Amino acid sequence: MSSSPVTASRDCLLHTSHAGVVTLTLNQPERFNALSETMLEALQTALDGIAQDEHVRCVVLAASGKAFCAGHDLKQMRANPDKAYYQALFERCGKVMQSIVHLPVPVIAKVQGIATAAGCQLVASCDLAVAASSARFAVSGINVGLFCSTPAVALSRNVARKRAMEMLLTGDFISAAQAAEWGLINCVAEEGELDAAVAALTSSICAKSAVAVRTGKAMFARQLAMPLEDAYAFAGETMACNMLADDVAEGIDAFIEKRSPHWQHR
Amino acid sequence: MSSSPVTASRDCLLHTSHAGVVTLTLNQPERFNALSETMLEALQTALDGIAQDEHVRCVVLAASGKAFCAGHDLKQMRANPDKAYYQALFERCGKVMQSIVHLPVPVIAKVQGIATAAGCQLVASCDLAVAASSARFAVSGINVGLFCSTPAVALSRNVARKRAMEMLLTGDFISAAQAAEWGLINCVAEEGELDAAVAALTSSICAKSAVAVRTGKAMFARQLAMPLEDAYAFAGETMACNMLADDVAEGIDAFIEKRSPHWQHR
Amino acid sequence: MSSSPVTASRDCLLHTSHAGVVTLTLNQPERFNALSETMLEALQTALDGIAQDEHVRCVVLAASGKAFCAGHDLKQMRANPDKAYYQALFERCGKVMQSIVHLPVPVIAKVQGIATAAGCQLVASCDLAVAASSARFAVSGINVGLFCSTPAVALSRNVARKRAMEMLLTGDFISAAQAAEWGLINCVAEEGELDAAVAALTSSICAKSAVAVRTGKAMFARQLAMPLEDAYAFAGETMACNMLADDVAEGIDAFIEKRSPHWQHR
Repeated sequence: MSSSPVTASRDCLLHTSHAGVVTLTLNQPERFNALSETMLEALQTALDGIAQDEHVRCVVLAASGKAFCAGHDLKQMRANPDKAYYQALFERCGKVMQSIVHLPVPVIAKVQGIATAAGCQLVASCDLAVAASSARFAVSGINVGLFCSTPAVALSRNVARKRAMEMLLTGDFISAAQAAEWGLINCVAEEGELDAAVAALTSSICAKSAVAVRTGKAMFARQLAMPLEDAYAFAGETMACNMLADDVAEGIDAFIEKRSPHWQHR
Repeated sequence: MSSSPVTASRDCLLHTSHAGVVTLTLNQPERFNALSETMLEALQTALDGIAQDEHVRCVVLAASGKAFCAGHDLKQMRANPDKAYYQALFERCGKVMQSIVHLPVPVIAKVQGIATAAGCQLVASCDLAVAASSARFAVSGINVGLFCSTPAVALSRNVARKRAMEMLLTGDFISAAQAAEWGLINCVAEEGELDAAVAALTSSICAKSAVAVRTGKAMFARQLAMPLEDAYAFAGETMACNMLADDVAEGIDAFIEKRSPHWQHR
Repeated sequence: MSSSPVTASRDCLLHTSHAGVVTLTLNQPERFNALSETMLEALQTALDGIAQDEHVRCVVLAASGKAFCAGHDLKQMRANPDKAYYQALFERCGKVMQSIVHLPVPVIAKVQGIATAAGCQLVASCDLAVAASSARFAVSGINVGLFCSTPAVALSRNVARKRAMEMLLTGDFISAAQAAEWGLINCVAEEGELDAAVAALTSSICAKSAVAVRTGKAMFARQLAMPLEDAYAFAGETMACNMLADDVAEGIDAFIEKRSPHWQHR
């Protein structure tokens, strides 16, 4: 059970890979893993690389230290009081979030401690999310006079609108249990079981046909943005193509023969 | 309390009618009521007939045997390894699902046992759904290498996206209780009370004005696909037309006079 | 802790203002605060005034008496059996609802008793809602032969579609607890604690930067109607503008210096 060596040149973001599961770990715990320019650039580079790597099966987005991610780097923002700077920063951040949505493989957020502002947005942008029972979520920009407008984009596509609006206007934290009940995360892991809960998801995904998983990730967000008739036309065509994969013949044969399938694309 | 005779020529789909409630029963329990070509054709024919029948008040979509519906017929699909075949199959299936959405009267899924893949999609496509407490739901195509792309269209319009994505990627079952908590079904019936729970809904709908019920079914999905301003313009015009129905005059008079209304259109 | 005098000329709608919180109180308890033409006109006038008033921080929409609002005035509607009348009425009502959505400041529904039909729509149209534990919600037009088409627009954008459809087709009441679980309201206040629960929200909002709150209210509904890429472009630009506000510099400085911020715009 060995892992690839940590990439030294991106020390703010650890990058490990094992059996198709890439783990990206936000690694500036002393800064609560804030999404500084450097961190955003490291994330973008990592995601762009993963998008080109056919061997990756899924991605875990994790964090070092007590906090998952405290959002943007307020000191850095304050030190650059310039509209063009802010436009570029939010564009870069929005691009990272959309790269997660459009990545060819599923991304799982693994959350401990706090996930605030753009940190909460990161969680909302992932396909799946697991949190420690002590984790807490907030879109707290409003507390410093800055409405979490870009986090609102992701949050409001995850939870009912009055709940999103309450979080955005009050800046108050919600618990992991509340986040699970509202649909912001998939499940809560008890103390000491966060690794196991994430591993259960990555194992499940890695046991599936890679073609099928990539097909699903590629179609899900796209169809959701379409009118029903268009969504069905697109999904039907997608599924017809998926049917032609060797894995499906094997999968159905295995199902009929009541044995485990042997996927080609692992 | 007699029912119309079962239509013999559609033996894979039983078709009974009583007091305005049409019950369509998937009737190939030995095949887990799979949506074979024949079953899809029978459903389409039945739905097309109901769409033309002004006496129908609502439809119950039920199933014989231990399972509600196990989705597509994998053996039949495997026996036809041809893209054009798959395109036609998924187009036919998508048309059945959209015929449920666009039927002039409400459709209630009555679910026992498993509802998997396109079987889960059927439940998601109905206006209302009631399930036995032992019922279970999954979009399990991923287990045979085939991502449930067309079921995803219906599922993702019923439940929060991370929940839909978890079901689609893992293929895992959720319980009836979970399905109710997530909004995939309306309620769970205890052991032996499924018939009564469905009857409570059909009785409630049949006690209403037929014009009002048909007005609502026709406008609901359409307005949901519109921007807010357009939705209000459309709904306002719809409601103004509804106001001109004789049933409304009678309904308001009955309300003011504190008596039961006598609807014209039953 | 003084309040402004109640505006006498709008006796069906009380209008009080205190420390930036405007409370509009539906005040025809003997008519269950029905949305008569007069009531709708009073609401529209009040909302138009608030939209122009830079001193308002948030609005509470409350009601006198045992009921929050029983929807349209059925007697008045029945007395005007004319399509043009109904079109104008629903257009006026839809405009009031959209004025709430587009008001520059958040609107909080404070609900006791029943909120039915367009009364339930009012709650759904607000940004936030708090209800007494004994409050109940229904879209009950179906009981008089009139499907709640315009209420459906707001309701179906608050709760999952099968839940909305069940309420619309059955006309049945749901409890405050159910409404909170489904996302129609934010929270339930125990007996005697409704005022305190609303005050907690208004205090929280008034403690924030006015620029930030107004920015958020203005962007939230707009971005939700956009495709993801457009939403991010819009939200990023919005947030860059928000960053230039003096309040943000003060807010971040206060955060870094671990003190309370002093907002300019209160």
